[in-house]
Amino acid sequence: MTVGSPGAAPALSLAEYAARACAELDGAVWDFIAGGAGEERTLAENTEAFDRVRLRPRVLTGSGTPLTATRILGRYWAAPLAVAPMGYHTLVHPEGEVAAVRAAGAAGIPFIASTFAGRAFEELAAAAAAPLWLQVYCFRDRARTRQLITRAEQAGFEAVVLTVDAPRLGRRLRDLRNGFRLPPGVVPANLDGGDFSSPVGHALSEFEPAMDWTVVEWLRSVSALPVLLKGILTGDDARRAVYAGADGVIVSNHGGRQLDGVPATFDVLPEVVEAVAHSCPVLVDGGIRRGRDVLACLAQGADAVLLGRPVLHGLAVGGQQGVAGVLQVVLDELVDAMALSGIASADEAGPGALQSIQRTL
Amino acid sequence: MTVGSPGAAPALSLAEYAARACAELDGAVWDFIAGGAGEERTLAENTEAFDRVRLRPRVLTGSGTPLTATRILGRYWAAPLAVAPMGYHTLVHPEGEVAAVRAAGAAGIPFIASTFAGRAFEELAAAAAAPLWLQVYCFRDRARTRQLITRAEQAGFEAVVLTVDAPRLGRRLRDLRNGFRLPPGVVPANLDGGDFSSPVGHALSEFEPAMDWTVVEWLRSVSALPVLLKGILTGDDARRAVYAGADGVIVSNHGGRQLDGVPATFDVLPEVVEAVAHSCPVLVDGGIRRGRDVLACLAQGADAVLLGRPVLHGLAVGGQQGVAGVLQVVLDELVDAMALSGIASADEAGPGALQSIQRTL
Amino acid sequence: MTVGSPGAAPALSLAEYAARACAELDGAVWDFIAGGAGEERTLAENTEAFDRVRLRPRVLTGSGTPLTATRILGRYWAAPLAVAPMGYHTLVHPEGEVAAVRAAGAAGIPFIASTFAGRAFEELAAAAAAPLWLQVYCFRDRARTRQLITRAEQAGFEAVVLTVDAPRLGRRLRDLRNGFRLPPGVVPANLDGGDFSSPVGHALSEFEPAMDWTVVEWLRSVSALPVLLKGILTGDDARRAVYAGADGVIVSNHGGRQLDGVPATFDVLPEVVEAVAHSCPVLVDGGIRRGRDVLACLAQGADAVLLGRPVLHGLAVGGQQGVAGVLQVVLDELVDAMALSGIASADEAGPGALQSIQRTL
Amino acid sequence: MTVGSPGAAPALSLAEYAARACAELDGAVWDFIAGGAGEERTLAENTEAFDRVRLRPRVLTGSGTPLTATRILGRYWAAPLAVAPMGYHTLVHPEGEVAAVRAAGAAGIPFIASTFAGRAFEELAAAAAAPLWLQVYCFRDRARTRQLITRAEQAGFEAVVLTVDAPRLGRRLRDLRNGFRLPPGVVPANLDGGDFSSPVGHALSEFEPAMDWTVVEWLRSVSALPVLLKGILTGDDARRAVYAGADGVIVSNHGGRQLDGVPATFDVLPEVVEAVAHSCPVLVDGGIRRGRDVLACLAQGADAVLLGRPVLHGLAVGGQQGVAGVLQVVLDELVDAMALSGIASADEAGPGALQSIQRTL
Repeated sequence: MTVGSPGAAPALSLAEYAARACAELDGAVWDFIAGGAGEERTLAENTEAFDRVRLRPRVLTGSGTPLTATRILGRYWAAPLAVAPMGYHTLVHPEGEVAAVRAAGAAGIPFIASTFAGRAFEELAAAAAAPLWLQVYCFRDRARTRQLITRAEQAGFEAVVLTVDAPRLGRRLRDLRNGFRLPPGVVPANLDGGDFSSPVGHALSEFEPAMDWTVVEWLRSVSALPVLLKGILTGDDARRAVYAGADGVIVSNHGGRQLDGVPATFDVLPEVVEAVAHSCPVLVDGGIRRGRDVLACLAQGADAVLLGRPVLHGLAVGGQQGVAGVLQVVLDELVDAMALSGIASADEAGPGALQSIQRTL
Repeated sequence: MTVGSPGAAPALSLAEYAARACAELDGAVWDFIAGGAGEERTLAENTEAFDRVRLRPRVLTGSGTPLTATRILGRYWAAPLAVAPMGYHTLVHPEGEVAAVRAAGAAGIPFIASTFAGRAFEELAAAAAAPLWLQVYCFRDRARTRQLITRAEQAGFEAVVLTVDAPRLGRRLRDLRNGFRLPPGVVPANLDGGDFSSPVGHALSEFEPAMDWTVVEWLRSVSALPVLLKGILTGDDARRAVYAGADGVIVSNHGGRQLDGVPATFDVLPEVVEAVAHSCPVLVDGGIRRGRDVLACLAQGADAVLLGRPVLHGLAVGGQQGVAGVLQVVLDELVDAMALSGIASADEAGPGALQSIQRTL
Repeated sequence: MTVGSPGAAPALSLAEYAARACAELDGAVWDFIAGGAGEERTLAENTEAFDRVRLRPRVLTGSGTPLTATRILGRYWAAPLAVAPMGYHTLVHPEGEVAAVRAAGAAGIPFIASTFAGRAFEELAAAAAAPLWLQVYCFRDRARTRQLITRAEQAGFEAVVLTVDAPRLGRRLRDLRNGFRLPPGVVPANLDGGDFSSPVGHALSEFEPAMDWTVVEWLRSVSALPVLLKGILTGDDARRAVYAGADGVIVSNHGGRQLDGVPATFDVLPEVVEAVAHSCPVLVDGGIRRGRDVLACLAQGADAVLLGRPVLHGLAVGGQQGVAGVLQVVLDELVDAMALSGIASADEAGPGALQSIQRTL
Repeated sequence: MTVGSPGAAPALSLAEYAARACAELDGAVWDFIAGGAGEERTLAENTEAFDRVRLRPRVLTGSGTPLTATRILGRYWAAPLAVAPMGYHTLVHPEGEVAAVRAAGAAGIPFIASTFAGRAFEELAAAAAAPLWLQVYCFRDRARTRQLITRAEQAGFEAVVLTVDAPRLGRRLRDLRNGFRLPPGVVPANLDGGDFSSPVGHALSEFEPAMDWTVVEWLRSVSALPVLLKGILTGDDARRAVYAGADGVIVSNHGGRQLDGVPATFDVLPEVVEAVAHSCPVLVDGGIRRGRDVLACLAQGADAVLLGRPVLHGLAVGGQQGVAGVLQVVLDELVDAMALSGIASADEAGPGALQSIQRTL
C-alpha cells in the first residue's frame, strides 16, 4: 500500500496528511477522531497557541546538523516525541496499533497504548522496537484497571499513564449528532466483557467519577512501573502530582475532547514547568502539528511531546508507511527548525529560543 | 407537542434551540426577541466575553457528581439559575409564561415575571413550583407600578426587581425598520388600560425618565418584598445600590437592548462583585448560552445568573417541554463543567477556576 | 424633495444615509468623497476606534432629558457639533453649501465653510442661523488667503480654521485611478482665477509647502477673528499651538485623506486634551458616525466634534432636508446615549463615562 | 517596452506592480519568488508588522520638500534604500540584473548582487551608477566563496554581505509541490561548474552547515571590502556581530523563506538597533512595500532598508523601466510620508515619528 493514491506525491506537511485522511475516512469516523467537546474552541486554541509562537533564531552557532535524541525516564528516545494514547487505531486501518507501533519503533519513537487499543498488548510488544507505555482510565471496578496494567506490564510495557481529566466524558457534539457507534470488529482488545460499541455512551460511564490523589498510591501498589499523570493543566496540580509521587506529568486537555473552554496546553506549559521544577519529566500534547511546535514546547521547558491525531491520519492514509511518513515530516521539520534556530541538540532549547514581542500598538 | 418537528433529534445546545426557534418564528417576532440596540455590538460582546474565558480545571479532587443547589435570599434554588424577566412570552407560544413557569418549577428554577408578562400573575402563581419574582418598570404614574407590585405580592411573588437601565427605550433598529407591533391578543395581562401594541413606541414613553435613588425607599414603602436593582454596570452604582438598601443587584445591560456600546456584563462583573463585597447577592444576565458560562459567572463572584432569550427559544420550539429542554441542556452542561473542573458544589467556584493567561506575543 | 425615493422610510442611522448616497452618486464623485489616502487604513481606523469604546452608564442619576447645548468661543451651540469643512458641496447637490447651512442653522449647529466652497460666502451668510466659520489653506500667494479671510469676515464669519496637515496633498489613489475632475459648474465660488478642476492636481500644488508656526502670527495680522488650527495629532503640537496663540485646536487627520498610517483621531484625543489643559477649546473630527461617538469624544475631553462626510451624504440624498435628517439622527442618538448613560448635560461628560477593561485573557 | 500592457495606466502602488507581475509570470516562477517557508506566516507577518505602525506627524515644522539622501559606509545614497540580494533576476526578464542595476543607478540607489545572480558581475559593474555590493553564501568549499568575492571586488563592488540565516534551505512548500526547476538558460552567471537547476535542491546543500563567528575573520582575510552580516534577528547576535568586527548588520528573515515562525523584521528592529548602539549601520529588509514603511524603519533606528520582491515585480512587468517605476513609487511615497510627518531629512526621523497607543479596551 502506497501513501495515498498510487502516484500521489508524498505529503509535505501534517496538514496534508489530515486532508488526505479526511477524504478517505467515513464521515462519522472522521468526526470521532477530529472532533472536540462543546464548540471545539479549546480544540482550535491548541493549534492557534502555536501560531502565536515566534522563534528567536541565533546565527553562526556552528551547530551543524542538530541531534534530536533524548532520554526520558532513563530510556533512549530518538527524538523528544512519542505517540499519544488514542483508542481504536483499528477504526482507521485493519492493522491498527500494530502498524503504528512498527512505524514508531522504526523511527525510535515510543508508543503509548490506550485502554481502548484495538489490538492486544502482546501483539504490540511483539512489534515494538522502542518503549511501549500503557494509558489507563480508572474504572469503578478497579480490578479491571489492575488487570490492564498487569497484562501490559507482563507484555513488557514500561510505564503507566493515568488519565486524570476524565471523571466523565466530555460533550462531544459531533458524536452525539452522528449517533456514533463503533463498527463491528472494532473492539477494545484488552478489555474483557462489556459493550463498548458506543464510545460516547456507557463505556465511560464505568469510570470512577470521584478519583482523588490516593489513586497514585494505589497504582504504586499494583505495579512497579513508573506512573505519569495525563491531563494536568495547572501548576498547582503539577505540584501536587510531584508530591503524590508521580514519575511524570503530561500537560494535556485530552485534545480538546473533555472540557471546552480550557486553555491551550502550550499556554499553560510554562506554569507547569515552573511548578515541577525538574522534579520529573514534563510531557505535553495538544495541537502539535509541525516540527517547530515541538521545538517551541522544548523551549518552554517540556521534556518531550506526544503526537496524537496526525498518527491516525497517517495510519488512515497508508498504514505503517503512512505513520512513518507522518513521523518523518515532523522529525524533518524539527531538525530544520533546530538547525535554523542554531540549536545543536534537544536539551539546548530554552526560553531564549522564543521571542517575546511588545508591540507598539 | 414534541420538541421541534416530529422525530427531530433533541437539541444538544442552546445554539440549536435558537436556530430552531428562528426557523419557526415570524421574522419580525424573531427580530423583536433577538435584536439589540444600535449596531448590536453590546449584544455580540455579551457572548464574545464568555468565549474569551479560559477555565482552569483541577484534577483528582474527588468531587464526584457536582451539586448545583444554592440559596438566594434565603430560598432554595436547584441551581444558580433563574429565568430572566422578558415581556410577552405569549408572543412565541399561546401558553406563554405559564408554560415557562411550569418548566422552571419542575427544574427547581425561579422565574422572574416581566411587567409586560402576557399571562396574569395569579396564573403564574398557580403554576409555580419554585420562587416567583416580579420585574417592574417605574411608570410616570407610580400608582401603576404600586398596583403591579401589590397584585404580585398578593399572588405570592417573593421579590421585586426594579429595572434601572430604562429611563427611555433603546434604539432597536430592527423593530423600527419592521414597524413592529404586537399581534392581536398579545397584551400585558397585568396592566390596566393603555395601548401597548407598539413595544418600541409609547408604552415605554410612560416610564419615569428621571428616576433617582429615592425610588428604592419608595419601593420599600409600598411593599415588604426584597428589592433588587437590575441594570447595574459599574462598581460605583453597585456600592450606591447597597447603600440605598437594595437586597440584591443584577448586572445587566438589558441583553444589549438599551445602550449599544456598553461593556459585556461578564466584563464588568468583577468590579461589581468587588464593590458589593458580599453585602447582598449579585446576579448577572447577558450572553449566557452554555453551562460553562454559568460556571464562569460563579467563579467571577456572581451568586446566580439569569437566562433570557434561550427560554423564549425553548418556548417557541416546544412550549413547556421546550423550556424544560433548554434548562436541561444548561444544567447538564453546568454539571459537566463543574465535574470536569473538579468543583463539587456551586459555592466552591472561585476565581481560581478561571485562567489568566499572559501571552508571549 | 423628500429624503430618498418617494415613500422611502426615513433613514435610521448615518450608515443608511451613506448607503443611500452611494447608490445615488456617480462612482467617481462617491470615491472623491468617501476615499482616503494610500490604503485607507487611517480612514478605517477612525471609525474602528469608536467601535472599541465602551461606555460606562450610571443609573438613577435623575438626569431626565439631557441638555446638549454648549458654548464654544463664547457662542451658543445647540449641541457640541458643527459641520466640518469640506470642499464643493455643489458636487452632490445644486444648492450645495447653502442647503447645508440652512439645515445646520435650523438645528442650531455651526457650519465651517471650506476654501473650496461651491457657493459664495455671502450666500452662506444670508442663509445662516448659527455661527459660520471659514476654513483656509495657506496659499503660496498669501494675498489669496488674506482675501478669503477678509471676504468671509466681512460676510459675518466668526472664526478662521487653518488647515495645518496639508503642506501637500495626500496620495488619494481612488481619485488618481479615476482621473477625477470636477464636472463643469462645480467651482470654488470664493477663489479668483486659476483652474481648480482637478482637485488631486495642481490646485493644491499652490499651497505653501513649508509653513511654520509664524503663520499664526500672520493670521492675527490680517484678521481679528479667532484662529483655530486643524490637523493636530500630537500633544506636543497642541502645546505649541496654544503657545503660538491659537484660539482652538482641531484634532484631525483630514478624514484619513492626507497621510495613511496616522492614528485614529479618537486615539490621540487624550494626549491633546491633556496638553491643552483647558487653555482653549479642543475639537475633533474623523469617524464620528453615531451619537455615542460624540459622547465618547466629550468624555475624552473634547469640547465639540465636527461631522464631515455624513453631511454630504444627507445633502446628496435629500438636499437641505437630507442634511437636517442626518443631523437629527446624530442629535437623537446623542440625547439617547446621554440619557442612558445618566448624563444630564454636555459638560457633565467626563472620563468616568468610559470604561477601561482589563481582559482576563 | 512600456510598463504593463500598452496604454495601461502607470501602477500607483507596489501592490499593483505585484498584481501585474503575478498576471504575467509563469505560476511556478511566481511561486518561487512570492513564496516563503512553511505556512508562510513569517512572510505575512513581515507586511502585517508595518500595518500596525502608526505614524506621529508633526505640523508647521517648515520642512518643505524633504531630502532623502543619506550616507552609508561613507558613500552617498540618493535615499536610504537599496535593492536586496535576490537570485536569478533573469528568471523574470532576459536583461535580469543588468536592467535592475541600471534602474537603481538612475535613481541613485545601490544594488546588492546575489551569489546566484543571473548576469556576470562585470556586466553589472559596467551598468552601475551607484554602489554595488555582493551577497555571498559560505560554501563548504570556501574557495568558491573566495573566488566570488575576488571577482566582484575586482569588478568594483564595494561591500560583501554574508548571509548567515541559511545553514540549510528553508522548507519552501510551493517549490516542493511545483517540483520547481530553473528554465534552461537561467543559471548563476558567476559560479563555475555544478548543477544549480533545482534551487530547492542540492544547490544549497553545498552550503556550510556549521558556520560560526570565525567566518567574519576569514572574510577579512580574503578581502579588504567591508563585511555586513545579513539575517540577524536578535539583539544578542547583533552585539556579537559588532564584536566580531562586522561593518554592518542587516536585520532579515530572508523574506520569510527560511524559518517560518520567526518574527517580522520590523518587530525585532528596536532590539537590534539598541544592541548595535550606532557601532555600525543597521539595515533591514522584509515586508517593505510603501514609502511609509521605509520611514517607519528609519524612525525605529534603521540606517537604510532593502527592497526585494517589488524590484522583481517591476522587472517582470517592464524591465528597467518597470524597476524604475517601482523605485519611483517608493521614493515618492517616502517623500510624501516625510513631508506630511514634518520631517525634513532622512536622519531626522526618530522614535518620535511613531505613535505608541495604549488603547482603552
